[in-house]
Amino acid sequence: MVQAVRDDAYPLHPVGRVASPLTDTASAPRQGDEGAPTAWLVFHPQVERAVRDLRVGTDMLVLTWLDRARRDVLAVHPRGDANRPETGVFSTRSPHRPNPIGLHRVRVLTVDGLRVEVADLEALDGTPILDVKPVLGAADER
Amino acid sequence: MVQAVRDDAYPLHPVGRVASPLTDTASAPRQGDEGAPTAWLVFHPQVERAVRDLRVGTDMLVLTWLDRARRDVLAVHPRGDANRPETGVFSTRSPHRPNPIGLHRVRVLTVDGLRVEVADLEALDGTPILDVKPVLGAADER
Repeated sequence: MVQAVRDDAYPLHPVGRVASPLTDTASAPRQGDEGAPTAWLVFHPQVERAVRDLRVGTDMLVLTWLDRARRDVLAVHPRGDANRPETGVFSTRSPHRPNPIGLHRVRVLTVDGLRVEVADLEALDGTPILDVKPVLGAADER
Repeated sequence: MVQAVRDDAYPLHPVGRVASPLTDTASAPRQGDEGAPTAWLVFHPQVERAVRDLRVGTDMLVLTWLDRARRDVLAVHPRGDANRPETGVFSTRSPHRPNPIGLHRVRVLTVDGLRVEVADLEALDGTPILDVKPVLGAADER
């Protein structure tokens, strides 16, 4: 039972939400570069200073909380294909995992204050946003 | 005040801990490819099924909870350099951010049951592990 792993618990507080036409798991693409529509990251006013240097045209990593995923799944058939052998979730990108954190590489299309439009985000409408990070370039560009 | 963002709180439960010779922030490299020693991921027995398909020689993404980071920092001077302009943390890799989740690309060196040795992990000894994901290859290899 994964739920028994309680030596510590750290509380995540979302910094915003995804606004997207994707509203149900069945119709969402499995990865952002497999046909995701454009979406908006809508940040809370409290994190305005953290957001303000996002720039149009850059690629970023968005971390989300996959709030519709299951946390008690430890192995899956990859991409839901029963012909593929059951595989431990740490070797898959299944949303179902003990800590269902989504990791999405997106491109920034528009920055409008606390609203940021991005391409290639497969997260569902309303998904909590946890963090945004730049993609790391070569070591001498950091 | 980031702490005021409490519309929801999601509890993270670590799935293991990092064992590393790195014990203090000041001496740790800023990124894993900037001189990190080898380290071990030590998983809880409860997640054995999730771990069991990790393979030597593969590159993986490890997500950690940066438990020594500050959550009330929204802007920093990148890499601690006062000559670089203060920048919103969502445009930096600073550990200090509202949800201090570390994202580390590592190479698997050894798999010994619940203990997995990796190269290029700059996390400090004792850092909680949240998740492990494969690096995504091209779309036709998934």
